[in-house]
Amino acid sequence: MTDFDATRAMFHLPDGVIYLDGNSLGPLPRAAAARVARSITDEWGEMLITGWNKAGWMDQPSRVGDRIGRLIGAPPGTVVMGDTLSVKVYQALASALEMRPGRRVILSDTGNFPSDLYMADGLCRTLGDGYCLRTVAPEEVAGAVDDTVAVTMLTEVDYRTGRLHDMADLTARAHAAGALAIWDLAHSAGAIPVDLTGAGADFAVGCTYKYLNSGPGGPAFIYVAPHHAEGVRPALSGWLGHEAPFAFDADYRPGRGIERMRVGTPPVLQLAALEAALDVWDMAEMADVRARSIELTEGFIAGVEAACPMLTLASPSDPHKRGSQVSFRHPEGYAIMQALIARGVIGDFRAPDILRFGFTPLYIGLDEVRAAMAILAEVMAGNLWDRPEYKTRARVT
Amino acid sequence: MTDFDATRAMFHLPDGVIYLDGNSLGPLPRAAAARVARSITDEWGEMLITGWNKAGWMDQPSRVGDRIGRLIGAPPGTVVMGDTLSVKVYQALASALEMRPGRRVILSDTGNFPSDLYMADGLCRTLGDGYCLRTVAPEEVAGAVDDTVAVTMLTEVDYRTGRLHDMADLTARAHAAGALAIWDLAHSAGAIPVDLTGAGADFAVGCTYKYLNSGPGGPAFIYVAPHHAEGVRPALSGWLGHEAPFAFDADYRPGRGIERMRVGTPPVLQLAALEAALDVWDMAEMADVRARSIELTEGFIAGVEAACPMLTLASPSDPHKRGSQVSFRHPEGYAIMQALIARGVIGDFRAPDILRFGFTPLYIGLDEVRAAMAILAEVMAGNLWDRPEYKTRARVT
Repeated sequence: MTDFDATRAMFHLPDGVIYLDGNSLGPLPRAAAARVARSITDEWGEMLITGWNKAGWMDQPSRVGDRIGRLIGAPPGTVVMGDTLSVKVYQALASALEMRPGRRVILSDTGNFPSDLYMADGLCRTLGDGYCLRTVAPEEVAGAVDDTVAVTMLTEVDYRTGRLHDMADLTARAHAAGALAIWDLAHSAGAIPVDLTGAGADFAVGCTYKYLNSGPGGPAFIYVAPHHAEGVRPALSGWLGHEAPFAFDADYRPGRGIERMRVGTPPVLQLAALEAALDVWDMAEMADVRARSIELTEGFIAGVEAACPMLTLASPSDPHKRGSQVSFRHPEGYAIMQALIARGVIGDFRAPDILRFGFTPLYIGLDEVRAAMAILAEVMAGNLWDRPEYKTRARVT
Repeated sequence: MTDFDATRAMFHLPDGVIYLDGNSLGPLPRAAAARVARSITDEWGEMLITGWNKAGWMDQPSRVGDRIGRLIGAPPGTVVMGDTLSVKVYQALASALEMRPGRRVILSDTGNFPSDLYMADGLCRTLGDGYCLRTVAPEEVAGAVDDTVAVTMLTEVDYRTGRLHDMADLTARAHAAGALAIWDLAHSAGAIPVDLTGAGADFAVGCTYKYLNSGPGGPAFIYVAPHHAEGVRPALSGWLGHEAPFAFDADYRPGRGIERMRVGTPPVLQLAALEAALDVWDMAEMADVRARSIELTEGFIAGVEAACPMLTLASPSDPHKRGSQVSFRHPEGYAIMQALIARGVIGDFRAPDILRFGFTPLYIGLDEVRAAMAILAEVMAGNLWDRPEYKTRARVT
């Protein structure tokens, strides 16, 4: 059994804050500051260039990738870190399209995170030649995979509503139609049990600064199924994905397996923070995290629906059909969220009308959830959000 | 006048080390550890998600880009940070090719850093349709720009030899032939005076972990000439390059000017280290740095040529035709460099036979250069490199 008191003690949470936004940016693992300081002072400062070998910086993207792999059902040697999620989406898409040369369609859904759609669209424009992105409503994806589709590109957990796609079912449908399946795990990794191997996913990508708590700008990851890995041609064929980067050959030869999905110099300091963050995961069982998450979200939904009838649940009511967040709709969602934040309850707002709350059992328990519900009920009952200062929109929420 | 004693005091250099590899990884600016710690503890730890606004993380890529701009002759609002150099090369190339639709050739030289060539090749393969990378010897570039060339992609300072391209001349030749010019400033930014505006460069890219001392995996930068910026279509159309990232629109609309070259979430911790590193540059005049660099490299070449006749100068002997490094050739270059490193003189080896020494006046002076020469002379005179343990190749040097 996971000891959630122990995991909670591994995070720093500011006084007076109930943090329900770990699905946007995870909080600081206490060990991260010291781990990064060691990278800076003992490694960079003392080893200088030799840190690439001595401190293991060069292998860090694969070493850390394996630790992420354990959380998403990916065997060792199939996950590598680097770049941002958007860049990893582009890599996966470009490789997948090349593996299905007769087909021109990327199928996604309208609930996907915009950056994934933008990257797909940008790639199609670069490719020309009839390549296009087709989006359908999330519930229509299953019926929309036809023999024009080269690849499905889906985010398992909807960033607005928390709605969960059935990864195994949709992957099987893609394969049945001769297409490949790319899964974006931005709101899955560290949030829910993921079994890439069991689902037969071809590619997966994700970020680490949400439920994995790597800090602002932490690196992304990419997974390539083992049976594809040696056949994939990297579109972003950077030197660290080369078979022998330090031979400085004139011609590109892809590295072994997943190594070829590396591009440039890895972000050593961000990776150090991620390493500290993953130590927390060594103490947690994903099944326990999921069970506790369901307990928290069910309690939150029941409490909010009882106390705040003016809020409309935007997430699936069946806990097995949503990730680890709960969203409600309200036309004044932005102002309501500002009123909550002013009272120490941090969630976030997503246009046009979504109040989003993330539930992260590693450091959030029933007490905080109850306290957050009470504050939300007070804000709604008293219309406390109805003040001009809560309606002025900042650039980022 | 730049006070080099003052700038030197701003770096941590390990005892017993003469560091002539700042052209590969710059040493630790003393303020970096505290600056990153502040980002972690005071910003991430206390502000959590609100750090994107409160701590200015969201604007950091442009704010820091402007500071880099001052070192490379780029006006405010034309440089933005993010990703790795390889990814920035890809962005610049893809945009440039689209701006010259009738042309299919990327022209580069065989001395260019392999990752640039690999990325160009990967892009051409993705584009298909006759797109290709053409490489000629560095001295033949000037004569090779014809009307098939869409864009020249050149690294100003050769990573092996330090040979300097004439940026203004080659850019003018590219333009005269109707082509665009991309400059890779990996070994230029912080090493030599660069005037992108004066040279009329269309795009420039560079990394920050060499002469700019941002630490392992520090982010790259990209420059787009102001008259192109509003017309460029980003191939890597990520959400943070969108006109309104937090509107979460279904369609991509490029952001204002250089902002559109942003892709995903910026690496806040690495950028914090870079900010501390750039404080050193606020105390330095590039003309002074260049003058001192020439003094150091001239002294080093004269001394080594006098004492080590078995080493062949691989860099131009005219200081105005090389960057801030000096390279010598020797068939046993690898072993010689290992022998030097064992004696505290850190340079690096580049296959097949290059001994490479970087000269970085911010923290290296004549005393170190003289000491390094004496050790090199001793190693060469006594064949001290001729030992098995110096000939076993590690993965990275």
